[in-house]
Amino acid sequence: MSPLQEAMVSLIEVFYSYSGREGDKFKLNKGELKNLLQEELTLATSKDTAMVEKILNDLDENKDGEVDFQEFVVLVAAMTVACNEFFMDCEKSCNKGKSEDHGAKKD
Amino acid sequence: MSPLQEAMVSLIEVFYSYSGREGDKFKLNKGELKNLLQEELTLATSKDTAMVEKILNDLDENKDGEVDFQEFVVLVAAMTVACNEFFMDCEKSCNKGKSEDHGAKKD
Repeated sequence: MSPLQEAMVSLIEVFYSYSGREGDKFKLNKGELKNLLQEELTLATSKDTAMVEKILNDLDENKDGEVDFQEFVVLVAAMTVACNEFFMDCEKSCNKGKSEDHGAKKD
Repeated sequence: MSPLQEAMVSLIEVFYSYSGREGDKFKLNKGELKNLLQEELTLATSKDTAMVEKILNDLDENKDGEVDFQEFVVLVAAMTVACNEFFMDCEKSCNKGKSEDHGAKKD
């Protein structure tokens, strides 16, 4: 498998390692979503029930009270894009710094 | 890093390993997209220029003739959801087969 295929399979495996724990194994209930956020993304702590509730409501497009795989991928895509933007900003400010150093040396 | 974080980082790394080859390193031009589809997803062959053109046009939301990371993630998300649906169908037909076997044994 290519690195991209492995990453895609990994997204599916991670989802099922939480959604399969209780109830409908094709969906994340609130407890499973909270575990995933805590263990995979260090996002929520046990006190953050309101935040987990908000994330669940934001993701739950079909309003069935749970997060299916399609809704989960939206979260992952949004977070990956945000990570990438952070990475791009670092790259651009690094390059800016280098060109300023270069200019200063010439003076 | 957790498996989910690794998968997200891998998506970013894969994108840049192709987008960084020529021109704007934050975007995939047609040639880079074709390489990615061929090498990562075994999707396009050298003859499939029309298909690559179609995929590029479908992804290119801002119509700048290239695919940025946000547009790329839409492709990955759609394909991962399709893979998951295939996986779910397999699971369900497997379980159906098992319950029918079980029923047959009881008769």
